[in-house]
Amino acid sequence: MENSNSSIEGNNLRVRKLELSDKSKGFLELLRQLTVCDSVSDKEFEDRFKEISMYGDDHVICVIEDEISGKIIASGSVFIEKKFIRKCGKVAHIEDVVVDAGSRGTQLGKKIVGFLADHARSMGCYKVILDCGDENKVFYEKCGFKKKEIQMVKYFV
Amino acid sequence: MENSNSSIEGNNLRVRKLELSDKSKGFLELLRQLTVCDSVSDKEFEDRFKEISMYGDDHVICVIEDEISGKIIASGSVFIEKKFIRKCGKVAHIEDVVVDAGSRGTQLGKKIVGFLADHARSMGCYKVILDCGDENKVFYEKCGFKKKEIQMVKYFV
Repeated sequence: MENSNSSIEGNNLRVRKLELSDKSKGFLELLRQLTVCDSVSDKEFEDRFKEISMYGDDHVICVIEDEISGKIIASGSVFIEKKFIRKCGKVAHIEDVVVDAGSRGTQLGKKIVGFLADHARSMGCYKVILDCGDENKVFYEKCGFKKKEIQMVKYFV
Repeated sequence: MENSNSSIEGNNLRVRKLELSDKSKGFLELLRQLTVCDSVSDKEFEDRFKEISMYGDDHVICVIEDEISGKIIASGSVFIEKKFIRKCGKVAHIEDVVVDAGSRGTQLGKKIVGFLADHARSMGCYKVILDCGDENKVFYEKCGFKKKEIQMVKYFV
């Protein structure tokens, strides 16, 4: 037991795939702890949910729900990129890993990343990659990752 | 005119989407200049080509063909990730940019990256990102990119 948050201690917290009803369980509010995440209508959410679902196992968003509070307290996503290199190999990309501020230090992040990496492996990827700030390097090293390249970005808006 | 390669000078080199017949035009040999890229059968190539094509504009591989030699001399890919953050925003990921060793210094890389970034913008992405080695940082800066985060990797094989 690593933290005094009883709603976390008392639960068998499992990682599951995102469901449409998670919008009303604070999923977007959780993402807001990661970056800008304006509110969207139920219709916009449903449309995006369906678009992502169409990719099946090639794009999976997972969450952890605190079953006592009914809130989503951790999330992350992974999508599979199909390549020609490495004998038509596949690479998994992890994105948008976030744990609710009140639940940090409880290994939920590690649980999320483990789930996503396991999915990548089961899909036959030869590697899984992600970009993060320097401040999260140690966390990902604990998850079995190593620093490799640098990320470059170009903004359109 | 930036180089003495007559087959490049003499051509109006345009960027176009990958075609199935590019396998016989040295597409895999070009990728081999980037990383490990074992030979695959025509069937394997076609299957992967079809899988990627199913994503339509969400996963585009582009090439430059030298019309005199009939060889593919530059390539790059971009895929569009659909998110919930930033009002259900989209992010483009550029991967596998390569220019044939004999054609470097002729702005083909810039042409490829420009094509991929233009595609990302036209698809409504709020940003385009890529990972690269330190040695390619200056090249991507010339393409309008800035260094942001670090890339972490976990290999399965």
